[in-house]
Formats: sequence, structure tokens, C-alpha cells
Amino acid sequence: MSLTRRAFIQRMAQIGGYSAAFATMQALGLLPGAEASLLPQLPADFGKGKKIVILGAGIAGLVSAYELRKAGFDCTIIEARHRPGGRSWSVRNGTKVEFTDGTVQTCSWQNGGYLNPGPARIPSIHTHLLNYCRDLGVPLEVEVNTSRSALMQADVLNDGKPVQQRQVVHDTRGYLAELLSKAINQHTLDTELSKEDTTRLLDFLSSFGDLNDKSKYTGTTRAGFIVGPDAGLTKAVLHKPLGFHELLLSDFSFGEFYEEQIDWQATMFQPIGGMDRIPYGFARALPADMIQYDSPVTEITTGDSSVTVAYTQSGAPKTLTADFCICTMPISVLSQTKNNFSPETQKAFTSIPLTALYKIGWESPRFWETENNIYGGISFLSSDMVNLVWYPTDKLFSPTGVVVAGFGTERQDIGGTILGGSATLKPTPFGALPTMQAKFDVSRAAVEKLHPGRGHLLAKPIYVSWAKIPYSIGCFANIFLPGTESAYAQLDKPQGRTYFAGDYLSYLVGWQEGALLSAHHAIERIAKQIRT
Amino acid sequence: MSLTRRAFIQRMAQIGGYSAAFATMQALGLLPGAEASLLPQLPADFGKGKKIVILGAGIAGLVSAYELRKAGFDCTIIEARHRPGGRSWSVRNGTKVEFTDGTVQTCSWQNGGYLNPGPARIPSIHTHLLNYCRDLGVPLEVEVNTSRSALMQADVLNDGKPVQQRQVVHDTRGYLAELLSKAINQHTLDTELSKEDTTRLLDFLSSFGDLNDKSKYTGTTRAGFIVGPDAGLTKAVLHKPLGFHELLLSDFSFGEFYEEQIDWQATMFQPIGGMDRIPYGFARALPADMIQYDSPVTEITTGDSSVTVAYTQSGAPKTLTADFCICTMPISVLSQTKNNFSPETQKAFTSIPLTALYKIGWESPRFWETENNIYGGISFLSSDMVNLVWYPTDKLFSPTGVVVAGFGTERQDIGGTILGGSATLKPTPFGALPTMQAKFDVSRAAVEKLHPGRGHLLAKPIYVSWAKIPYSIGCFANIFLPGTESAYAQLDKPQGRTYFAGDYLSYLVGWQEGALLSAHHAIERIAKQIRT
Repeated sequence: MSLTRRAFIQRMAQIGGYSAAFATMQALGLLPGAEASLLPQLPADFGKGKKIVILGAGIAGLVSAYELRKAGFDCTIIEARHRPGGRSWSVRNGTKVEFTDGTVQTCSWQNGGYLNPGPARIPSIHTHLLNYCRDLGVPLEVEVNTSRSALMQADVLNDGKPVQQRQVVHDTRGYLAELLSKAINQHTLDTELSKEDTTRLLDFLSSFGDLNDKSKYTGTTRAGFIVGPDAGLTKAVLHKPLGFHELLLSDFSFGEFYEEQIDWQATMFQPIGGMDRIPYGFARALPADMIQYDSPVTEITTGDSSVTVAYTQSGAPKTLTADFCICTMPISVLSQTKNNFSPETQKAFTSIPLTALYKIGWESPRFWETENNIYGGISFLSSDMVNLVWYPTDKLFSPTGVVVAGFGTERQDIGGTILGGSATLKPTPFGALPTMQAKFDVSRAAVEKLHPGRGHLLAKPIYVSWAKIPYSIGCFANIFLPGTESAYAQLDKPQGRTYFAGDYLSYLVGWQEGALLSAHHAIERIAKQIRT
Repeated sequence: MSLTRRAFIQRMAQIGGYSAAFATMQALGLLPGAEASLLPQLPADFGKGKKIVILGAGIAGLVSAYELRKAGFDCTIIEARHRPGGRSWSVRNGTKVEFTDGTVQTCSWQNGGYLNPGPARIPSIHTHLLNYCRDLGVPLEVEVNTSRSALMQADVLNDGKPVQQRQVVHDTRGYLAELLSKAINQHTLDTELSKEDTTRLLDFLSSFGDLNDKSKYTGTTRAGFIVGPDAGLTKAVLHKPLGFHELLLSDFSFGEFYEEQIDWQATMFQPIGGMDRIPYGFARALPADMIQYDSPVTEITTGDSSVTVAYTQSGAPKTLTADFCICTMPISVLSQTKNNFSPETQKAFTSIPLTALYKIGWESPRFWETENNIYGGISFLSSDMVNLVWYPTDKLFSPTGVVVAGFGTERQDIGGTILGGSATLKPTPFGALPTMQAKFDVSRAAVEKLHPGRGHLLAKPIYVSWAKIPYSIGCFANIFLPGTESAYAQLDKPQGRTYFAGDYLSYLVGWQEGALLSAHHAIERIAKQIRT
């Protein structure tokens, strides 16, 4: 979509609200759908003679270099680590996971098993990332985000024994449909619905909840079987419906609606072999010396006509001066890096809390496949400790795989100025566990609760806690916390010739698509500045 | 599960209802889940010196030969066609589709595109089929049965323009949650729910429908965007919620609950390259001369000690006498084949109507991927003509694919004695179309309704109508029609030494898992007869 057209629609939306924008989109014949990119079409010699220094070889930095190089710019990426990707990372056999406190874990998983500690799935509505994968030749496979055979566990339900997700989903729907049918039949909603719609709604509810002819929920094949359909005269035996009271008490809303969040809806993808296939794909597409690895930035000096970056490389101090800088370093790192940015910008670095996400992965035989017919998808536990177990979608039917038991946050926020006072610094119950071993123990215990007798099969755990990973110091910046808007708006402004980019400067924060869109946004403004 | 244990549970279920069976299963420590197989464990020399003739090289026949051969039986499969698989078939470049009326279509799709006119997906709860695929080395891939980006179209909604499935699903949920919340807040359900459960349910409904703090539905990100989230300061614009009246009028219940039918729930699989990779896998695993192709059966003479089968091979009459026969021919064909079965059995052949299912496949550029972010899944139309368009899951992101536009029934029933009188012989609106071209036209029109301006891109249609396919003469037998129970029970009985098998003798009719379980059931009884 061109900028003009897009701007027009935005303006209409601001003036007239949703309806006006909706009508406008339809009038223009535009397809509803994915985010539009701000990336301008630039001629191949547009950036000729212009130097750009890009800080960070994560997705935002790589996309910046990839696009600016096509437009003739002379790009250099300064990267603190020895690899590209930032949080788009895959831990596999041989990977060292080093924490800021000096802890080192070395992964020794076999059979190609891997953990994506950062982004691990690509929504099919993230079209720009899909297009880059195509351009770079990064092969994708379907990532299974939902399995109705996956499990749900709550101590207050079924004596604490896990049930299948299909039972929770369909028993709940049955009861909701029964209750609403009853309310309708008591004529309590007559003012809401016409007589014809009432009839239609009762029909709909009967299908929705698979109700019997008395509008009662008494179980459904959708919730699965104790004894499945078979050959000959053997009859199937349905699950007994779970109690509605126990379902409500279990509070499965996190797990039950997980798959319906817009970015987690089917269909999803993953790069075959690990998420880092994407950054390595970008790195391969760039000249070998364009990315300067092992080069932590020590100082950024921005100005109205150039930017100078000081960094060390293998311990030796270096500097680089360029016409423009795209800075994709995390704000938690920027707040600790010497710079000459405005006080407002410096304050903004510490005004958006970073989430302290972690994941724990284990190598294990795939008992969830052979015993539970679970192929991908996520099991959920009603627990404030480890509340999900995520099964691998890669190499289904193979002997072993890497299962994620624990994916959550260790603290409410980390970073500088914490919103809401120090109370929000409090660790979560998981974060409060005193040792890595204690964390592995609760992780294993979650699997044992879902798969009794199988917890002992988990081996070689790897724990990645983003708050402890050097050069990340936190996972994504939580821009949806109240009070962060002004910091976001401040960081959206360039500082001299330095433009900030990263997923935290998009409304798709925490997603690679957000990071690349923010790179497009930086390029758009640099192009505009050059043109004017 | 051993037969004894299983029989015990069945008996408990019959005596005590669901609850008793449920408690029993738990007491025995059995996992809930898939169908159990009746297949006995037989020693490798169990069938030594015993001949078995198997009629039909579909899944039931192939599994019979595969298992009986392992138990030392001397097996021969008599198959009317020149290929194995029966309805487990894939149409691809070079395939000839021949109808009983002499019509011949030759497929010329490129890039490996194929249509599975019969079974096209494997539920992950069909564990025995998955196990055979593993044993035979048939590689599987995830089959995407649901895409929230897929479309729903009804003439009464949105001026007939398609909307995304995510809109239909989540707008509907929003309205249901709002209505039920209202009923609860009016205290009309106070007798149904405790005060605590009322509070919990209101919380749950707020999540379920993504309601605002006044328990109103005003739209949700789950329903997607007109302008997606972006970088910088651009705000996303949500879809305007669809009207509840129009949603009810559209009656999307077929499409909306499709994915939740037990056998269609995530995760599903497909063999890479086409469903016929499974029968060819079995055929490869059997000695080359065990399957006699091009050999239509002309007469079956069964007795108490042997069975004689007459057939033609390349036109020449032949006979084969064996100790046992497993007959997997469709009942529509059996009713036209000379035999000495009891009058009750002969009557049963014509007492279960066969469904006249059809599919139409087209080769097309994948505009649904590039323009609509649809990767697999199914779009639905509220139409009594062509009501679904099914997108390919194989070779996603490649230039072309085979899209199924039309998968339904042409007549209520076909076959001999039709239940419910001749009225049920009436063709469906699709079946009543006078020519193949007319059928292609409505198929293309359905795609055009969903994807305006794209219908013309469809090329090289292939129409498979099972009622017109020789040696099938119908798709699956509809054993769930009232009045068919006694015919089913009759066919479950052997005739002398002839045992019937096929998906129609299982409660998983229409599924390959049902066919193989019925083969297991036949083997179980033959083994029992030999032992006694």
C-alpha cells in the first residue's frame, strides 16, 4: 500500500472512527489483513556514497542492512555477540548459554533437537517475515500451536489428574450453550432478540454446545472417548462430562483462549532446524565483512550530520563514523551505554520495563506422541509456577525431541525506572526459586503432573532467562503497560542522525515482524531526510 | 489392551453407564484416548498351511494380507483395479479418472500437485494408521485443517463479500458472552449457579468474548484488523464487528464447528505426496505376486470348510479356493456379484445406502497464500451448492497447488433398497446439475465469491464422483442412518468361511482407521475359529 493511500485511511480512521475507516477500505477495494509496511521503494543508487552504521545484528539490524544495501548504502553492522540474531536464537548441541552472573550451560542434545529461547513461531499474518524467508531461501514448516489431545491440569479438577483439552473446551461450550438456551427459553432476553433471531440462536446454540433435544448438555463426541469407535459391534464410550463448577474453579482461561490470540491463531510456521535459520539467512545474504562480530558498543556520539560509534573488537578499542546510525540495541543496554542523547531519550530508556521471560527445554523420548497422541501443541496447568508444557513440532514421530516445560516471566519488570514502584520488581513464584536446580525441579514436576510416571525421562535441561543474558538484559519491552506511551513516542524520534529501531518500537513488540517493521520505519525516515 | 481387559470395561460400561466405565478405566490406570484394536498377537507359524483369499486391495484388504502374512498364512489379494488402495487414491499428472458412463478425464497437473478424492487427512487419534505409516516408512506431514485467515461467505452478510473466519468465530463468541452475561446479571440463572460460580462465570465470559468492562462486546483483536499493528506511531484499526442478526441469518454452523468434530480436530496429518503413498507402502511390503490386479470377482462360493472365488484376469476366467476369505468389496458391488450368501446377507448389501460424495480439484496459482495469508484450512460458503473450498497444505509457498472447490454429496443415497423411499434418491442441487461443465462452473463460481477476480485462474479441473467410479459405486456406506443397524449386525456375521471387512463394518466409517480396525476384527475371528 502506498504511503499516501495508507495515510489517507489513517486520517479517515482518526476522524470517523472504525466505521469510517472500514467503509473507506472497502471503497478502495483493499483486502483486510496484515500490517502494511512503511518501507519505501528506493532506487539501487539512492544511498550511493552514504555510510550507515547499524548497532545490533538482530532482526531489526539485519533487515536494515539488507534493505539499505539494496538501495546502495554502505552499511556496517556492529554486533556485540559472535553470532547474528539477538533473541532470534536457537540453542542446540554445542551451544553455550552464558548468564551475566557467570553461569554457563553447554547443550548436548542429540538428533538435531533445539530450543528457540526467543521467538519460536511465525504467524501466517506476519507476511513480511514470510516474504523474507522466501527471499532468503529459509525453508519453513507448519508449527502446530494447538492439539486437542494436549492436556489441561488443575488440582481442583478430576482429582488433579490431567484431562484432554478437547474435554475442557467442549464441556465448557456445552454448559454455556445450555445456560444461554435456558435464559432464552425463560424469555429473559426477549428485548435483545427478535423472535426469528431467538429461534436461530437456539438452533445455533444446539450446534455450538452439541445439546440434546431438550437443550441439555449431556456430553459430546467432540470431547472424545474413553473407549473409541471400533470395528464390529463394540460401541464407543464417551467421556463423562467434567463438572461445570470444577471447570470454573480450575480457571483454564489462559490455556483455553491461548490459541485464539490474534498472533497465535492457526496457521503458524517455524523455520526447519531452528529460528536462527532466519538471521543466518540474512547474514549469508550480506557481504562477509558487513557484520562486525564480538564488538560491544561503548559509546554513541550523534550529531546533525554524522554519528560516531565507539566499540571494542577482541578487546581493542575502535570507532566508526557514518552519515546515519540505526540503533537496534535493547533499551536496557542503551541505558548503560555512554551517549550524547537528550535527557528525555535517556530517561525513556529506563521507562519501559523489560519482561524477564524464561524458557526451560529438556531432551526427552516423545512419550507424549506415543502415549497421548499429542503432536505439537501445548498442555496447560492451572499453576502460578510452571503453567505450560510445549511439545515440539519438528521431526514428529522421531525418537526424541526437545520439550519446553516452563515459559513465563521471572519478575514483573526489569530495567531502570520501574513503573508502579518497587512492588512490581517482586519476583514471580518461579523467579523466587533460589537455584537453577529448583527451577528444573518444578519444570520436571509440571511434566510429571501432566504425564504421571514420565517426568524422570526428561534429561539435559537448558534454562534461558533473558534477564540474565548479556547484551539482552531482558526480553521484550512491555510497551503495553500504562504510562509507557510517552517513552515510546520519545524513542520513536531520532536523535540527530541516530534512528532507533527494534520490536519495542512497534505495536508487534516481542515479534520478529515488529522488529522488521521498525527497521522499515527507520529506513523510511532516513530516505525522507536524504530527500529533503 | 488385552481382549479380556477390554471386554471387562465394555461390560462395565453396559451395566453402569459412563460413570462406571470411567471409574473402571481410571482404576486400571488406562489412558483415555484412541480406539483399541482387536488384532490378536499370533505366532509366526500360526497360519502355516492355511490359504486366505482377500477380495479387494483397499486398506482393509492390504492390512489383512500384511498381518496374516506375518502370522504365516498363504495370502492372495484379488483386486479389480490395476492399482492398490481403493478409495485411498491420489489423482495426479497422468491419472485417468474413468466413470461408469464412459467419461474419461486425464489429469495433467504440474509441480507434483495431487487430489486425494477419498480420504485426505489422518487424525492424530487414528493411532493404528499412524503406526502402519511408521512401519511402512510412509513419511507424513501436518495437514492444516483450520486457518483463521480462511474465509466465510454468505449472501446475507457484509453485502455478500467474504469475511475472515476469525471475524465470524470471535464476533459470535463476543455476542454469546454478552448475552449470557446479561442474563446472569439479570439474576435469571441464580437457581443454576452458586454466587461464587456466578462471579467466576462472569470472569470467564469476559475472557471468552473479550468483553469490555461493561460486559459489552465491542470488537476484539482476535477478530483481526483492517489496518494491522505497525512500527512507529501508527495505530491498528480493528474490524468493525459483524452484526449478530446477520451472523445468525448466515448460519455458518457447518463451517464454524467443522474443525471441532472429533476426527477433524488438530493435529491432523497427510502422507507427503498423496494418500496413495499408504496403499503403495503396503503393496511394497508384500511379495510382488500376492496382489492379483485387473481381476474383478465374478462369483463367491462360500462353505463351512473353504471358499471358492471366481474372477477374470485380463479377460480370462480363473478360480481360487482357500481356507478362508476376507471380503472387503463394497456392498454396492457385492449386491451385483454372484454369491451363495444367505438371503439376510444379500438383503443387507442393499440396506445401507452409500453416500455419493464428490470432490472437484483445480490447479491454480496460490493466490490464497499471497493475497489472503491462507495456508491450508478451509473456507466456507453458506450455499446449498458448493459450500467449501479446501486449500492445499502440501508444498506451501510454492507457485501452484491443487485447490478443492466442492466436496459434498450428489444424492442422499445410492444403492439397492433405499431407506425412506425414493424421495431420498433425489439429487442435491449440485447433483442435479446437468453436465460436468455445469459442475465446474459452480465450483469456479464458489472460488470467485470467496476470491473476487481470481476464479479465472483455476485450470484443469478434475471431478471425482464416487457413485460413478467402477468397483466403488459410491463412497462410504452410511451406517449412521436410522434403520441400518440390523444390516450392519448381519454383515458383521461371517458367511461360512467368508468374513466381511471394510470401513462400513466399523464405527469409523469413511476412515482408513475404520477399514483397518475391521480387518483386525476379521483376523481376530479367523484366529478364534482356527483355535477352536
